[in-house]
Amino acid sequence: MIKILELNLAPPSLKDNRGDADRLLAELKRELKTDSIKVDLKMLKTLPNILRRCNYKVKAVLSAERDGFTLIKATDTDKKRVFAGIAVDLGTTMIALCLVNLETKEVMGKASFINPQIEIGADVLARIHYADDKSGLKELNRLVIEEINNNIKKLCALRSLLPKDIYCLAIAGNTAMTHFFLLLPTNYLIREPYIPAVNTPPVFKADEIGLELNRFANVFTFPNIGSYFGGDIISGILFARMHEKEEVSIFTDVGTNAEVVLGNKDWLIGCAGAAGPALEGGAAKIGMQAGPGVIDKVVINKKLEFEVSSIDNLPPIGICGSGLIDLAAQLFLYGFIDKRGKFVDSICAERLFIQDEIKYLIIVKKGEYGANADITISGIDIDNLIRSKAAMFTILETITRAVGIDFASLSDFFVAGTFGYFINPESAIAIGMLPNIPIEKYKAIGNSSLKGTVLFLTEPHLIETVDKIRDMITYLELNVNQEFMSRFSGAKFLPHTDAYL
Amino acid sequence: MIKILELNLAPPSLKDNRGDADRLLAELKRELKTDSIKVDLKMLKTLPNILRRCNYKVKAVLSAERDGFTLIKATDTDKKRVFAGIAVDLGTTMIALCLVNLETKEVMGKASFINPQIEIGADVLARIHYADDKSGLKELNRLVIEEINNNIKKLCALRSLLPKDIYCLAIAGNTAMTHFFLLLPTNYLIREPYIPAVNTPPVFKADEIGLELNRFANVFTFPNIGSYFGGDIISGILFARMHEKEEVSIFTDVGTNAEVVLGNKDWLIGCAGAAGPALEGGAAKIGMQAGPGVIDKVVINKKLEFEVSSIDNLPPIGICGSGLIDLAAQLFLYGFIDKRGKFVDSICAERLFIQDEIKYLIIVKKGEYGANADITISGIDIDNLIRSKAAMFTILETITRAVGIDFASLSDFFVAGTFGYFINPESAIAIGMLPNIPIEKYKAIGNSSLKGTVLFLTEPHLIETVDKIRDMITYLELNVNQEFMSRFSGAKFLPHTDAYL
Repeated sequence: MIKILELNLAPPSLKDNRGDADRLLAELKRELKTDSIKVDLKMLKTLPNILRRCNYKVKAVLSAERDGFTLIKATDTDKKRVFAGIAVDLGTTMIALCLVNLETKEVMGKASFINPQIEIGADVLARIHYADDKSGLKELNRLVIEEINNNIKKLCALRSLLPKDIYCLAIAGNTAMTHFFLLLPTNYLIREPYIPAVNTPPVFKADEIGLELNRFANVFTFPNIGSYFGGDIISGILFARMHEKEEVSIFTDVGTNAEVVLGNKDWLIGCAGAAGPALEGGAAKIGMQAGPGVIDKVVINKKLEFEVSSIDNLPPIGICGSGLIDLAAQLFLYGFIDKRGKFVDSICAERLFIQDEIKYLIIVKKGEYGANADITISGIDIDNLIRSKAAMFTILETITRAVGIDFASLSDFFVAGTFGYFINPESAIAIGMLPNIPIEKYKAIGNSSLKGTVLFLTEPHLIETVDKIRDMITYLELNVNQEFMSRFSGAKFLPHTDAYL
Repeated sequence: MIKILELNLAPPSLKDNRGDADRLLAELKRELKTDSIKVDLKMLKTLPNILRRCNYKVKAVLSAERDGFTLIKATDTDKKRVFAGIAVDLGTTMIALCLVNLETKEVMGKASFINPQIEIGADVLARIHYADDKSGLKELNRLVIEEINNNIKKLCALRSLLPKDIYCLAIAGNTAMTHFFLLLPTNYLIREPYIPAVNTPPVFKADEIGLELNRFANVFTFPNIGSYFGGDIISGILFARMHEKEEVSIFTDVGTNAEVVLGNKDWLIGCAGAAGPALEGGAAKIGMQAGPGVIDKVVINKKLEFEVSSIDNLPPIGICGSGLIDLAAQLFLYGFIDKRGKFVDSICAERLFIQDEIKYLIIVKKGEYGANADITISGIDIDNLIRSKAAMFTILETITRAVGIDFASLSDFFVAGTFGYFINPESAIAIGMLPNIPIEKYKAIGNSSLKGTVLFLTEPHLIETVDKIRDMITYLELNVNQEFMSRFSGAKFLPHTDAYL
């Protein structure tokens, strides 16, 4: 997004009396090999004095836009001055920021915080309904902008910077979050035929939406493909470099939603799990979010005892999505559940109890591992997990079959998000959630949306790459895919009826 | 500058679920055969409802910029809606506006008013000194912006329009006036080596400088060549179409300043008369400005009586620049002045009197033609005129000789400004102010700066043409031209020592 240059301009003379801006721009155009460099009117006001003060030896900060560059800062060449940028992953649940030194590419600080829009609605749909009212949209927008501003200030303060030292912000989020961020109407996003206000938002000035950065700072918003396929995925692809590879790889992001992209340097196909009924709400949200004391691994030993490990080895307080997948794999392996996911009374024995007509299985008894209450899962939890794993696998199956690729020929299987870090691929394969391919092909890439935006900040040419990735992706609409529903029904068994390997 | 299109968009469907903005832009890009069409963030907010309200049959207003177009309005196709623009000639003394219907190209209204900066300084130099102080620059800017806003409101009211119906403004002025208008520092304009803040200002939004037009309206400022050669001349060349002609023509604008351009479709060379000492203040300012009762023609008959005619045939109250040129030609022809411009006592006889050591010649006696006072000119007036005509001719001679063109080969001699309308070319030739070429080659083109901006508003491709004209012009710096001063000395005779034909 940003290019920083040092220039030695020829000072003006009677023989070379070009205007100050024209002199600077001519040299920038020569250096950057482009005819298209813009300057704001308010920047022009300051140039005559800046150029003379620094004796025509000037450092220029340029922001890449779709049609060229915009000059956003001209100053002396003082080495101590820091030019920083902000990368944002705008999640429905969590928002993560990185403060990046635009010259050294160093990540100078990180922050992550709960999306304050949660106070209005935990899920996207609730927020979109709230935004049907114009003041509701404004409030959703205000909440997120204010919280981002606050966190930028804090990140800056930790490095003795000011918001005016921030020269750019790149942000990636799902389509609805992007619309709230840009104060764009969301009402048509959730109504057939599901139309965003915009897929490729323009680059704009930070102050147009109340972001408190340098007054010349630009904001770049990663484009989305449609209502259910957002810029966070484009940013993830950019980070995983799928669009550069000869071999075909697959990318999955299982967060609040589940998105999958398949392809290589020549083609990309994507689909989103919001289309699968069981993934609404997201596989990662079954159980609780990963955190201290949360069970993330479960092994059943030969004596049918449950051995659990919890994050930070603290007394267990619950189980997270990846722990649940481990658990389900083990339960199935040792016969605690049948292939429909129903508890087998004879094996579960005294671990099973019924309350309000719902069956519960005790995983950790009060007192074990220091737990101060029984930790249980219900038949509904297992059922939800099976619906989620079925949807996940069905999406993977649908997208690969759509282009005639089999899982075995994939070079990499990228798993983005915290889910990717915590999941045990063997367990996910065992329950038929992920395909049975060599474990080493699974690559947990973490918050690839954030990492993609960080990458974007310091590489001016990536603006073209991002648009190219967006335009390359063929979006497979699962809502209108008849095969999807029949595959989904077949996948609701453990591991699944249509054994893949 | 503006292109208006009507589009019939395919409505969205599950099979074509592009974003609203993307759908509209794709069709605009197809129609305009460009990849570069931008939309503001605030425009995006309104598009979803607009497109649905007008059922995807939409009228789009686009503003041409240097890198493509910006969408500035999308609306229904109601024929009654008027899309208007404002053309401005920003003179040091007078400001002229035209209200233009952007679809029919009709000029819907005109206004011209005194530049309110005159209360701060009558000439450019005084204003630039006043602007050395930042608050002074702000005041000069405020004065002119407010007065333009007021006049736009009045022009709109006369046609039942509102400022929000104005979608663009194109303005041309000399370099200093342009800087004041854009609130750009002028201090280096008048200090060697005479450097403007910018020659080619960016296209910007009207509200960036407080112009009260439609909130999406763009402002285009004609570029200048240097401190003494402004956008008003570029606009004049555009109107005269010199840049399209095979044959070589010449363009002169004698207002507060005198600028000359020579050339054809392949080359253009320009110079400015502020370089000539006698033209400082401007030839047109000798005597009084043309207006009711002002003498604009003088003939001396065989009985050596002075026959004058005044504007609107009212009792004469003074003499304007063109009347003075007539007068000087007649005075020289009948021997009232010698070739140095000095009064010949024997011929002037009782018309001559001396007051405070200055000689005066009575043109119209009190009572003649209803005049209620003697109308006289002084030896100083004649001397100033001779210096002006010498400078004018020297500029013309210098620029033609610089490229080896003789006056006889010129196809057209464009005379811009009110000066051009009132001047009698025969008299100007007789005193050696203009070259002795066939009278029909002299073309008075009026306020060509205003007419060029009017033309500009409705032709989107002219933005490239204007930049091309600017870049084509080689500027001949008279300040550093040694020959100029010796030619100037030679031209201070009537008609001049170096007889041309």
